[in-house]
Amino acid sequence: MALLVMKFGGTSVADMECIRNAARHVKREIDAGNQCAVVVSAMAGHTNQLLEWAREASPLHDAREYDTVVASGEQVTSGLMAIVLQSMGISARSWQGWQIPLLTDGVHGAARIVDVASSELTKRFAEGEVAVISGFQGIAPTNRIATLGRGGSDTSAVAVAAALNADRCDIYTDVDGVYTTDPRIVPKARRLSRISYEEMLEMASLGAKVLQTRSVELAMVRKVRLMVRSSFEPPERYAPAGGDLQNEPGPGTLVCDEDEILEQQIVSGIAYAKDEAKVTLLKVADKPGVAASVFGPLAEADINVDMIVQNVSEDGRYTDMTFTVQDTELEKTLKVIEGAKEKIGYSDLRGSTDVVKISVIGVGMRSHAGVAAKMFKALAEKGINIEAITTSEIKISILIEAAYTELAVRTLHTLYELDAE
Amino acid sequence: MALLVMKFGGTSVADMECIRNAARHVKREIDAGNQCAVVVSAMAGHTNQLLEWAREASPLHDAREYDTVVASGEQVTSGLMAIVLQSMGISARSWQGWQIPLLTDGVHGAARIVDVASSELTKRFAEGEVAVISGFQGIAPTNRIATLGRGGSDTSAVAVAAALNADRCDIYTDVDGVYTTDPRIVPKARRLSRISYEEMLEMASLGAKVLQTRSVELAMVRKVRLMVRSSFEPPERYAPAGGDLQNEPGPGTLVCDEDEILEQQIVSGIAYAKDEAKVTLLKVADKPGVAASVFGPLAEADINVDMIVQNVSEDGRYTDMTFTVQDTELEKTLKVIEGAKEKIGYSDLRGSTDVVKISVIGVGMRSHAGVAAKMFKALAEKGINIEAITTSEIKISILIEAAYTELAVRTLHTLYELDAE
Repeated sequence: MALLVMKFGGTSVADMECIRNAARHVKREIDAGNQCAVVVSAMAGHTNQLLEWAREASPLHDAREYDTVVASGEQVTSGLMAIVLQSMGISARSWQGWQIPLLTDGVHGAARIVDVASSELTKRFAEGEVAVISGFQGIAPTNRIATLGRGGSDTSAVAVAAALNADRCDIYTDVDGVYTTDPRIVPKARRLSRISYEEMLEMASLGAKVLQTRSVELAMVRKVRLMVRSSFEPPERYAPAGGDLQNEPGPGTLVCDEDEILEQQIVSGIAYAKDEAKVTLLKVADKPGVAASVFGPLAEADINVDMIVQNVSEDGRYTDMTFTVQDTELEKTLKVIEGAKEKIGYSDLRGSTDVVKISVIGVGMRSHAGVAAKMFKALAEKGINIEAITTSEIKISILIEAAYTELAVRTLHTLYELDAE
Repeated sequence: MALLVMKFGGTSVADMECIRNAARHVKREIDAGNQCAVVVSAMAGHTNQLLEWAREASPLHDAREYDTVVASGEQVTSGLMAIVLQSMGISARSWQGWQIPLLTDGVHGAARIVDVASSELTKRFAEGEVAVISGFQGIAPTNRIATLGRGGSDTSAVAVAAALNADRCDIYTDVDGVYTTDPRIVPKARRLSRISYEEMLEMASLGAKVLQTRSVELAMVRKVRLMVRSSFEPPERYAPAGGDLQNEPGPGTLVCDEDEILEQQIVSGIAYAKDEAKVTLLKVADKPGVAASVFGPLAEADINVDMIVQNVSEDGRYTDMTFTVQDTELEKTLKVIEGAKEKIGYSDLRGSTDVVKISVIGVGMRSHAGVAAKMFKALAEKGINIEAITTSEIKISILIEAAYTELAVRTLHTLYELDAE
């Protein structure tokens, strides 16, 4: 017997047929004797309707009222899911954030979870009742409904799993796991059976939109094992969770501690992000304090800088400086730098969104040298010019011209032996 | 300065344009220095969507989950209304039933209000904040959302008005008041400027669907003055409430104590109900206990009997008996009577839905004799046959053939001098 948290996202509960299918996944676990808390998002189309109304009411709305409006979507799904489970003969009841209570701070629209009361839920599990919990919402210290912001339901699910000390948190979504790279550009992409939290974090923040970064961070800190599965698969595809959860994850991707991954690949996946923009300052004085004069004003303007490259100066007097920002911030960035031109001192300023950031991710890199060298060589052989490089312990990211995205990703996917047989 | 409760029904908040218009009615009162609690229903179309989902989930649903689903509609409107009021420069916040709290009993789907906490709301009125309250919902002793059933938002508004000791409870709806009869069949129908609670109760229960019976009962018991107005009128049509609320009700209909109505008409209105069905038992034994043998089984089958007529027996041995029930219960009624045929003893059983109940209502009848006699004479002159009669202190109801509905209502409307000039 296992205690599971099962989370179903907006597309997995988009209409009554989807909700019914999701409920059948729950039934599979209940029939096998497992205890379940189900965390639901709002029905996808319903969320859009609520957001549209809030926008129509006033473009500048009180975040507390906005939260009251949008959190109603999850309330509806929780009630409907409870009704459907009951109609299948399963004892179930819905829980809103304020009923549990799931306490948050007072930052409406992007609240952080402070505490999840678990004693009442635990008592009812023992009586065989399924808890159907509205995701995305909690209650602020002022007794008002607060929402957790984008992807909040994933975070709700992980927080509930941590509070209940659940054996696993199953995230049912519209894909059946985490892939070595985007299958749309690499048909040979493979589903990973396991991936470490650290790797998943890099994948998530780099554009693999399966799990929200925040939820993976929380899972890592609280040691919650996450399983990514597709709610659109027939429920019988998946075996119910059994006693020994360490060894039977089944289809899907288990996001877990590295220790649980016995045969760790050196590289687990290739991610890419097309929303980067490159900014280059030509002929900047090569002297102490010049970096501060560039990045100080950007920080003050709340612009996040990602990669930074400063060429070695040839004559010891001038150098070129390149960095990247979110593409949506390019214009603002250029304005800030132009405004500080006198203080910085440069001959020319160039901006471009015609770039892509490609990242090779794997915890195995820590103990394997030469991963980067191999990468640079392979790309050079394909005639791909690298414009910038950054690295972390488990990741190497490069910036290249956007036109080479597919070629580079496919080349690296094959290079690190990730292609499916 | 006055303390007002302003209630807006589902059609009055059907879309953002309606909500904005409703908000302008609130602004009129706030600008005049009044304090306001606004009670809102769910947006009309949104309610239908929620009901459809609940039905789709399972035809037999847990009333507690059903309440969770449908109460979300009012939650949405309250948030949107607060946002719109804020955008007009008015300090406002939404209140859900569980936040006030508005306590109910545990009869989900048709809960009764037990208590409305008023201290926090009153404190905020003093600070100039408008309370936007979700109608139709409260919180049951189990900490779950409970809804009040059909027309519940009217009842919420009256309960809030009573708890706050409000000067008046304004019910904004899609008609601009209570009329002497249905204007669709009598073009000369007049809007009543005032009507007593007792008369309104009779009107409401007889098919004039402006106010829910329950809310009028509660208003009568708690002495809450109700004003019926149209939210679709331009806000400037109505003068804001002033200091002396006794004398300036303005356009609309004030539902109040008889004492407030100085020039009471003998008859205030003519109502009709087409949903009656007539049942006749021929040749019933004229002996003690026969009525019990008929109406006992009907009561056991939960069938409500309205009018009852027993003819005087000619020979002292047999009589005919006629009664009316809701037309939807006719078939069930006939079955019950057939089942008890041996015990009752009758020669023939007849049922018909081809009847209408017409009622003349007025508290003035109490002190004026001859109202009924005048009625019977006028109808006889038009060749209308009366099939049954019941009377109360302030009402005379007759049953006639449905084809005569319009003729009878118009005749009586003129007879009692209700026609507009």
